[in-house]
Amino acid sequence: MSAHDFSGFKLFDGGRAPNPRRVRMFLSEKGISVPLVPVDMEALGHRGEEVTARNPLQRLPVLELPDGRVLTESIAICRYFEALCPEPPLFGGDAFEQAAVEMWQRRAELNFLFTVAQAFRHLHPAMREWEVPQVADWGEANKPRAIAFAELLDGELANRRFVAGDTFSVADITAVIAADFCKPARIRIPEEFAHLRRWYDEVRERPSYRA
Amino acid sequence: MSAHDFSGFKLFDGGRAPNPRRVRMFLSEKGISVPLVPVDMEALGHRGEEVTARNPLQRLPVLELPDGRVLTESIAICRYFEALCPEPPLFGGDAFEQAAVEMWQRRAELNFLFTVAQAFRHLHPAMREWEVPQVADWGEANKPRAIAFAELLDGELANRRFVAGDTFSVADITAVIAADFCKPARIRIPEEFAHLRRWYDEVRERPSYRA
Repeated sequence: MSAHDFSGFKLFDGGRAPNPRRVRMFLSEKGISVPLVPVDMEALGHRGEEVTARNPLQRLPVLELPDGRVLTESIAICRYFEALCPEPPLFGGDAFEQAAVEMWQRRAELNFLFTVAQAFRHLHPAMREWEVPQVADWGEANKPRAIAFAELLDGELANRRFVAGDTFSVADITAVIAADFCKPARIRIPEEFAHLRRWYDEVRERPSYRA
Repeated sequence: MSAHDFSGFKLFDGGRAPNPRRVRMFLSEKGISVPLVPVDMEALGHRGEEVTARNPLQRLPVLELPDGRVLTESIAICRYFEALCPEPPLFGGDAFEQAAVEMWQRRAELNFLFTVAQAFRHLHPAMREWEVPQVADWGEANKPRAIAFAELLDGELANRRFVAGDTFSVADITAVIAADFCKPARIRIPEEFAHLRRWYDEVRERPSYRA
């Protein structure tokens, strides 16, 4: 639990979308409570004035500090709280661990969360207004990439408990949310990836998973 | 300059490609010297045994430590050296600065370096063996996104010297290499982005730019 008081902060939140979930899960792991401002992304609320004034890129989540300064990008927001509330460390301990967590966070994000998101955004009819233009061939090209990364991760998880090592880290948060996102993106992770399944079942038991 | 001795390390390097350049520019800013192992990416050397054994994702650069441990992902490698050699800080100072550098590094990477790279990889005939399948519509969709981000950055640089604040950071490294990459990607950044031009000309004068 954190001794900091974040009651004067605002976290503009986007519900079940992957990036808002990443930050809420991170805060839950830290035992940090930040007032949420819900934004209805299905009604394209992230393109409204409230968000655009704070993030011209019109993406969520957005953190506003009591002095009006703003941070965007999920991982940047997480890193801010990591610096203020280092325990438990979710970005690694010593120099090598910090780098290993960064490496696996990025691998999970670029090769898994991102590829699944591309399949979803470029193929799902509900995304027509979100992703302009939708390029179906690009969506399809990402599906086997997501599965190839899941296979690589399965091999890694044969030898250790979590994505970046034997300790839970922000890389697990990115990876579990990517795995969840496979269903709406209509990507089927093969059942035979048993180590990935063992890890997935374990991470979903953490209270932070419901945050 | 660093007091550390990295002579037992190996940095598998990829010449003029953007990611290997990012790490070399970072090391140069730090005054760190690491033995390079050149890999000929034009001959697809990054898919050869030497690299694949160390990075199954077959990407460069790859850092090998004297004990055989391996780090990949440019920003993870940079962060490793930042932790060992904190001066000058290239990932920010206090908690907010660290988060702001992370935010701008990510914005520059996801909205600029990545979009330019997608245009290059999906449209350039020389990339036919690199990007399978090439999806021309996706390449084209990224060109206006790169220019839109350059415009946003131009507005930001009206009010401060560097991408993430008044101090040079890893976000400038990502952004300058993205700007350079526009030419082979056939993306023309409008001349009227005068603040971006002022920044670009200044960063290209740094000795690290030639690393």
